[in-house]
Amino acid sequence: MTSTKKRILIIGGVAGGASCAARARRLCETCEIIVFERGPHVSFANCGLPYFVGNVIESADKLLIANPDSFKRRFNIEVHVETEVTHIDRHAKRIEVRDLKTGITRQETYDALVLATGAQPNRLSVPGIDLPGIYMLRTIPDSHKIKASAANAKQALILGGGFIGLEMAENLVGLGLEVTLLELADQVLPPLDPEMAGYAAGQMLAHGVRLRLGEAVTAIEQHPEQGLQVRTSKGETLATDLIVVGIGVRPDAALAREAGLELGALGGIRVDEYMRSNDPCIWAVGDVVEVKNRITGEWQLVPLAGPANRQGRVAATAILHHFAHASQNLKPPLAFEGVLGTAICEVFGLTVATTGASEKLLRRAGMNYGKVYLHPGHHASYFPGAKPIHMKLLFSETDGRLLGAQAVGEAGVARRIDVIATAMMSNSTVFDLEELELCYAPQFGAAKDPANLAGMVAGNHLRGDLPLADWSDLQDTRALLLDVRSEQEYTAGHIPNALNLPLENLRERHHELPQDKEIWLLCGVGQRAYYAYRLLMQNGLKVKVLSGGMQTYQAWMDAGW
Amino acid sequence: MTSTKKRILIIGGVAGGASCAARARRLCETCEIIVFERGPHVSFANCGLPYFVGNVIESADKLLIANPDSFKRRFNIEVHVETEVTHIDRHAKRIEVRDLKTGITRQETYDALVLATGAQPNRLSVPGIDLPGIYMLRTIPDSHKIKASAANAKQALILGGGFIGLEMAENLVGLGLEVTLLELADQVLPPLDPEMAGYAAGQMLAHGVRLRLGEAVTAIEQHPEQGLQVRTSKGETLATDLIVVGIGVRPDAALAREAGLELGALGGIRVDEYMRSNDPCIWAVGDVVEVKNRITGEWQLVPLAGPANRQGRVAATAILHHFAHASQNLKPPLAFEGVLGTAICEVFGLTVATTGASEKLLRRAGMNYGKVYLHPGHHASYFPGAKPIHMKLLFSETDGRLLGAQAVGEAGVARRIDVIATAMMSNSTVFDLEELELCYAPQFGAAKDPANLAGMVAGNHLRGDLPLADWSDLQDTRALLLDVRSEQEYTAGHIPNALNLPLENLRERHHELPQDKEIWLLCGVGQRAYYAYRLLMQNGLKVKVLSGGMQTYQAWMDAGW
Repeated sequence: MTSTKKRILIIGGVAGGASCAARARRLCETCEIIVFERGPHVSFANCGLPYFVGNVIESADKLLIANPDSFKRRFNIEVHVETEVTHIDRHAKRIEVRDLKTGITRQETYDALVLATGAQPNRLSVPGIDLPGIYMLRTIPDSHKIKASAANAKQALILGGGFIGLEMAENLVGLGLEVTLLELADQVLPPLDPEMAGYAAGQMLAHGVRLRLGEAVTAIEQHPEQGLQVRTSKGETLATDLIVVGIGVRPDAALAREAGLELGALGGIRVDEYMRSNDPCIWAVGDVVEVKNRITGEWQLVPLAGPANRQGRVAATAILHHFAHASQNLKPPLAFEGVLGTAICEVFGLTVATTGASEKLLRRAGMNYGKVYLHPGHHASYFPGAKPIHMKLLFSETDGRLLGAQAVGEAGVARRIDVIATAMMSNSTVFDLEELELCYAPQFGAAKDPANLAGMVAGNHLRGDLPLADWSDLQDTRALLLDVRSEQEYTAGHIPNALNLPLENLRERHHELPQDKEIWLLCGVGQRAYYAYRLLMQNGLKVKVLSGGMQTYQAWMDAGW
Repeated sequence: MTSTKKRILIIGGVAGGASCAARARRLCETCEIIVFERGPHVSFANCGLPYFVGNVIESADKLLIANPDSFKRRFNIEVHVETEVTHIDRHAKRIEVRDLKTGITRQETYDALVLATGAQPNRLSVPGIDLPGIYMLRTIPDSHKIKASAANAKQALILGGGFIGLEMAENLVGLGLEVTLLELADQVLPPLDPEMAGYAAGQMLAHGVRLRLGEAVTAIEQHPEQGLQVRTSKGETLATDLIVVGIGVRPDAALAREAGLELGALGGIRVDEYMRSNDPCIWAVGDVVEVKNRITGEWQLVPLAGPANRQGRVAATAILHHFAHASQNLKPPLAFEGVLGTAICEVFGLTVATTGASEKLLRRAGMNYGKVYLHPGHHASYFPGAKPIHMKLLFSETDGRLLGAQAVGEAGVARRIDVIATAMMSNSTVFDLEELELCYAPQFGAAKDPANLAGMVAGNHLRGDLPLADWSDLQDTRALLLDVRSEQEYTAGHIPNALNLPLENLRERHHELPQDKEIWLLCGVGQRAYYAYRLLMQNGLKVKVLSGGMQTYQAWMDAGW
């Protein structure tokens, strides 16, 4: 019996590792499954850490989804916490393990090894980075330290404007701190395009966060009196009581590298669609691997819990399949086909979400694309409480295939991005979006849901019924800008040089417009400009529409255009 | 010029008719477009009527999305309200029109005619149905009458437990009335299966609505003192101040029938996928047509605003295509491919939604299907405020194709049904649901979203990893019922005859279980029973799982099983 008992060793016990272990047990009651975790906790909810710091989640116990004891009782899985794996001997199929509490080292053999070693936070290499009062947020102990520090602090400085940086800003403001956020790039939330990320930046400013974009830290020093002070690339000196650094992560692939496993250009472990490395007995999952972007086909790092969990499930399935069918040429029943990069973040009540590729990413990948903007209400306007959703949809100009979507608003954002992400998983087009049959009652949506509308605007464009001008050409264009909103709306604020001729008057006055000059139309959100386009085009004028109207213009301006 | 000017006449100016008119104008600036509406309003939001009655929507003006004047100014579309079309002369391509204000009749010729005549409310044929104080809710004037009546009423009786009946119950309770709801069937919300509709029934009871299922009205009389009294099929006499009848609608196809257009067995106009009737110059859209169910392929009546709007768009596109290419054999660029029947309703803060076919419908259509139940939280359990979503997923046992889904809960319901509806539009399977990459942050979802989980449970089942017992066999089964929850949970309430053996003790005690007898496992929601199944099956026992656990058991019991 003992000789046939297969041993699965898993290095790392958070999202991907824990999922893999539990799935392996469900598939194999007789396997020996052992998890080694360097930290003190397994399977904890790291996405909840900022909210634990902010006392939204009141107890750290809530973050502990499981513990070594429950893994043992429920799954008969051995979990060794505070235990580091220091070496992989691929030839002997053996790892070296060190108990961090005792310092004692031992060897463990495996039939299958899973690397779920996660990611390391990027470190800022500036003078003073090791001073007390500077924190990162990756673990429960990290969050305890920040909580303790924040309790006596008045000012906090956050370095990095990614998801965690924004969530930390909100939570530290919630604790009553004055918060400054520094970001090296010209925008927050790098997965989004700048004009969409600008809504989140605006929300932060509106809630008192001092936002400093395009600015780097050059040095950190002890403040002469108390706390810290930071010198920046713009020559400023900022005083603060504590600093939280959240400038992204990189794969923790040291063990894999030392073992000679194939890594990708981004430093993550290279795996096939069954999460197997170039060693036939080693799999890898979670933040430590590189994954294929479903849209661009490029390798990418996507340190998110959802993909990590699915990868753990795929790897366990592949391992048991390998045990059963190693000599045959059968494919495992589950595969990991890549990521869209769906992500979501809340900032002071504003939801920001994205799926698929951003415009930046498409441009970098050299892909052909079109884009539309729209700003529909999250439910029917006649029902009280409708909030706008600012949407950007990216799609192939060739065949309408969906390439990406970004949305921002106070309500209904996750739902629309989830719908578009679902459509993207089956390679759907903007024409498919038009036809979706989604939930409608007045408090839940509209007869034409925002997701339908996004498809319709893009579909109209691709059918040639709605030629679009590009906002980025606005400054250089020689086209006539025609604002078809009411006189009152126009007077309240308009693009410099834009003429006003309300939609309602166009039928009688279109002959006043030049026949030989290109005309770019805009209105509030795009709908009236579309109507105006149809009218003017059929009267022989050369017309295009600025997608998303004044709302999008404002977003472009806010993005520092 | 005049001789080439095409005339499009549209009968009915609410959802489908108004959409068709506006789209036709966008496609053709030179066409003459005329809408005839029998009622006083065009393009009003009839889905909002219950909320206007309940003062949630404060002004009837909010419900008026457009009016004849705005149609004229914005779209150059003539709208004649309070104007009835009394006859169609297909041979002469001419209709007879009567101005209801003056009684004057005139003739109008058409190149294309669109029937958007909508639906008529079903009438109850019982004695006394024409007494004062008995209302239907189809129009804004109807809602004014009900509001006026409710202002002096203490008790209201609603006949019919469909979407409108439930919305009316909530709104009349909100006005302080004692509300009784009578429904002939044994469940409310007929598009759902009884065990899922039961959650809505429970919510109504909890909010003081007196719910009487399986009971019909046999007569209505004047109450000896004041108000009305109703006699029921159970021999009861119920006093009430007002009655709202909402027992469904039927296509208002009288004009079409009289004109000899082809109707279906359900009384709706038969159209092709371009919404054209069997007359090449007549199209029909909205509640008056029959549509194909995408899942069962059967003809169906789906009186919902979303499909009506899309049909209007399709018909307008087809008409302009017909004008341009009548002599050629080209297909119009937009088609209406059928309906899923996605629908949603809120009852006292509980959301109930459905898409695709119900189990009842699948059984009636003789289709092969499997089903799973689950009860995941609407977001991560470690973030405060997670609410359960009760889900039922229906799928093909052959290939896993999604056939239908129903969900009930306080939050996140529309989102999951929309995701599944989107997946169904591309004929996705439960295996595709497993892989969806959806929005996850602690306040928005989970690393395994409820939609993923639904796919995983069904996928596990179809891969043979999770054989399911059928709840409807529970009463007759000779299987051993094994409850794997904790002793404490078991003691608090369990299925009669179920034995208790907690999951945590199964590994050491499974030898106590009979080897030769089928064992049906259940727990709280299904997860632990799945783990127990994997363990026991691998130890050679004959095991199945009762999907959804005690939560589903409770729902079946509540449904009067």
